[in-house]
Amino acid sequence: MNRAHERETQSSVQDVALIVGGGPGISSSCARLFAQNGMRVGIAARNPEKAVLQNLEKTHGVRRYACDASEPPAVELLFANVVRDLGAPTLLVHNIDGRVEGIFRKGITEADPGMALDTVRNSAFSAFLVGQQAARLMRENKPDSNGTKGTIIFTNASAALKGFPLSGAFAMACHAKSGLAQSMARELMPQGIHVVNVPIDAAIGWTQEDGTRAHRLAGVSVDDNMADPDRIAEVYLQLHRQHRSTWAFEIVLRPWVERW
Amino acid sequence: MNRAHERETQSSVQDVALIVGGGPGISSSCARLFAQNGMRVGIAARNPEKAVLQNLEKTHGVRRYACDASEPPAVELLFANVVRDLGAPTLLVHNIDGRVEGIFRKGITEADPGMALDTVRNSAFSAFLVGQQAARLMRENKPDSNGTKGTIIFTNASAALKGFPLSGAFAMACHAKSGLAQSMARELMPQGIHVVNVPIDAAIGWTQEDGTRAHRLAGVSVDDNMADPDRIAEVYLQLHRQHRSTWAFEIVLRPWVERW
Amino acid sequence: MNRAHERETQSSVQDVALIVGGGPGISSSCARLFAQNGMRVGIAARNPEKAVLQNLEKTHGVRRYACDASEPPAVELLFANVVRDLGAPTLLVHNIDGRVEGIFRKGITEADPGMALDTVRNSAFSAFLVGQQAARLMRENKPDSNGTKGTIIFTNASAALKGFPLSGAFAMACHAKSGLAQSMARELMPQGIHVVNVPIDAAIGWTQEDGTRAHRLAGVSVDDNMADPDRIAEVYLQLHRQHRSTWAFEIVLRPWVERW
Amino acid sequence: MNRAHERETQSSVQDVALIVGGGPGISSSCARLFAQNGMRVGIAARNPEKAVLQNLEKTHGVRRYACDASEPPAVELLFANVVRDLGAPTLLVHNIDGRVEGIFRKGITEADPGMALDTVRNSAFSAFLVGQQAARLMRENKPDSNGTKGTIIFTNASAALKGFPLSGAFAMACHAKSGLAQSMARELMPQGIHVVNVPIDAAIGWTQEDGTRAHRLAGVSVDDNMADPDRIAEVYLQLHRQHRSTWAFEIVLRPWVERW
Repeated sequence: MNRAHERETQSSVQDVALIVGGGPGISSSCARLFAQNGMRVGIAARNPEKAVLQNLEKTHGVRRYACDASEPPAVELLFANVVRDLGAPTLLVHNIDGRVEGIFRKGITEADPGMALDTVRNSAFSAFLVGQQAARLMRENKPDSNGTKGTIIFTNASAALKGFPLSGAFAMACHAKSGLAQSMARELMPQGIHVVNVPIDAAIGWTQEDGTRAHRLAGVSVDDNMADPDRIAEVYLQLHRQHRSTWAFEIVLRPWVERW
Repeated sequence: MNRAHERETQSSVQDVALIVGGGPGISSSCARLFAQNGMRVGIAARNPEKAVLQNLEKTHGVRRYACDASEPPAVELLFANVVRDLGAPTLLVHNIDGRVEGIFRKGITEADPGMALDTVRNSAFSAFLVGQQAARLMRENKPDSNGTKGTIIFTNASAALKGFPLSGAFAMACHAKSGLAQSMARELMPQGIHVVNVPIDAAIGWTQEDGTRAHRLAGVSVDDNMADPDRIAEVYLQLHRQHRSTWAFEIVLRPWVERW
Repeated sequence: MNRAHERETQSSVQDVALIVGGGPGISSSCARLFAQNGMRVGIAARNPEKAVLQNLEKTHGVRRYACDASEPPAVELLFANVVRDLGAPTLLVHNIDGRVEGIFRKGITEADPGMALDTVRNSAFSAFLVGQQAARLMRENKPDSNGTKGTIIFTNASAALKGFPLSGAFAMACHAKSGLAQSMARELMPQGIHVVNVPIDAAIGWTQEDGTRAHRLAGVSVDDNMADPDRIAEVYLQLHRQHRSTWAFEIVLRPWVERW
Repeated sequence: MNRAHERETQSSVQDVALIVGGGPGISSSCARLFAQNGMRVGIAARNPEKAVLQNLEKTHGVRRYACDASEPPAVELLFANVVRDLGAPTLLVHNIDGRVEGIFRKGITEADPGMALDTVRNSAFSAFLVGQQAARLMRENKPDSNGTKGTIIFTNASAALKGFPLSGAFAMACHAKSGLAQSMARELMPQGIHVVNVPIDAAIGWTQEDGTRAHRLAGVSVDDNMADPDRIAEVYLQLHRQHRSTWAFEIVLRPWVERW
């Protein structure tokens, strides 16, 4: 983009970004990119003492918050603290997968009901809670130069697009999050709040400091066959800067070699 | 259909139908039609003492069960009792809307989080619980003459197709139920269990004994502008009788004059 | 269904069925089933002298018509002849795949443009032409006992649900047919005409006189892993008999073992 | 974006953009933005002598081509000329609506069959023709720094998402274009060619030189209730610069106040 254009699409308002869910992938990439672009950035996680988050604080001034985002009072407190420390959010990223370890690859007859419900609570219900708090604050924001009072982005998964076998609980959770996002978009967009659902139809592989790429599981070969969280963060920033005359509600991201 | 054909599509196995959720609409229509077609029929409801259910027992021999279908032990007990009384189900209908009264028409900023979670528990999570129990039993069934070991039908709503404004919790619940249904279908259909999702994109208006039609709310004018639960029950029976070479996973039903 | 019910859902009007596209699969199954249910049946094909169609005439009194359904004047003439011979149609089945032989498995860089356009003309455009003629006639029909002035069923394929690689022309054709069906449904259903799109997500294997099953290609093993056209025809008849308070617009049919 | 990042996402290859379909909206916005970003730009239209296109040549050095994009030989010639003048395209935008004047708001019973077919030929079939030529050339390109050999963007309409009443021909055309785009994406993305479908669920209102906004029809009030083609062009540029590890296939753009 030429410079004139860039000025135009950048916000005149101080941007405050809150990222809920914190790990070495999309959350870290977002925190870095948003901070580099002049935003005040907070990140909330069950365990904010993880080395990766401590490092984000040191290198990019990211504020860390402890929060179980599936608990209503904890979410209320989180937003109160963020407003106090950074100001009212203009950009919220909900980036929680929510699956509990024991639910992976479990057929409908084997899956533990408690774990299934926890998966929904961790994922879709926490999205409801943080989306609610963000919406309450954002509707009071002054529109930025793109007419946007705030942007709410829900990271989602391919299970939002298709219910896979051996994945009933996650299909429930991801579909629920999509339904919530759609309802919020139809309700909040006419109020100047941009709501987006981003199903990532890919494994995530991030770039390490030495330039090589890594995956959650050791030993998995990663090149550009996996979605790069730095590229996902770029898309999130572009979405936040879209003018309200031309908003996207949903973008599915997948690598060039993905089967779909 | 000619008689030869009808014989062919009817099951040679004793059909046992369990309907979870009980009211004067789809549940009652299903109970009557299934009983008329020679099935043993049970119906589970939080309050099985409702007059409409007592009447079904008298007129059609329908067995009534008390069950809060969002509670895992209650659902386990329900299925144990049904097996004991009627035999293993060959047809399950999950017919619970799940919305708690206070969640109707609430915007995302007003909706009570506890009510939102209850809506999901009542609807999608109870579908998970009864679907799980049914799948465990049905996979042990002998295939009927259509190759079907059992049929699981989830009644759903237009909120499964589209997240409407002022309806975030219900959008979560209905989308979750669709995701679950899809996952179960992909997993269980190759095992001979037919899973179906039926979003009813309509208000429901039932036919009363005097032939006039009624709706949940008094004073609403009902003619063929609303989905007739007797017709919905027919579709459910047709779905149960589909041969496994030619199964439908999803059918959206709406009246001729519905806008969509 | 009990007899009382069956009476209720059968039409009091003389049903006239027209099937456009004629072969040994869905078209023949529909012709037989519709005739067995008391309808007057016509079938249109480029070559109505095929043995399979001649046989339908002998065994079931099906009237044969020569018609290239991608040519407007030919389609006008077809309907004029059908009205003259059988009366105005109350049930139309458009059952043309439309692929020309040379387009199969051709990548976008290899596919012949003329063949691609012919595929669209044979399939979606012929659906437009016969749908138009049927709509003009049906809107003048008297509603039957289900409130239906006529039913228009478009057989479609999995390429209507998903654009597969090496299949660009067919993806265009099948998606076009779905778009047309949707537009017609929204326009005509409030006028009492039931429009349905039926993507068959399956290979078709029909039952031969000796009870074994056959497929278009010799040597393909067929059991209940392929959609049975006799079962598809049943669904079509059920759709035609749905009451207008409870219409389905789309049903995807696939065998139990199909991957989707 | 910070400068380091911007360098990273810019291509090291000389970009050549071809825009098929030329008017004062999306095509002009794309031509200007692409030229400002250092691309060689060509634009093809039935009438390249329009003032708006002549002006693009003067202000931004855009090359103009006469082409009826629904004619195979014309499309072949267009690409030969573009390669000769500008080099092999790395970015193709197909931006043709295709509706002939007489087809607007025509019900299925009134619509002229010839006009319906022309609409499909102008829109989906021309997309097939230019997509085919572009794919043949792009697969020979060297990947740019994002791993992309070329990007093919199809502008589409809300009729691709939903078949509206009184719009059967356009529903066919737009659905066909979506089906084609999907098939091409699944086929070409693993070959390094990025294919995108962009349904614009909005009226288009462009910004005039005096800063006010205008619409195709005089007298229509335009503010940010309509999609701004300058913003659409930004999205197209962002799509072209996505890294192949993280590609989007489809983005629906709509104004904040749009009902959907």
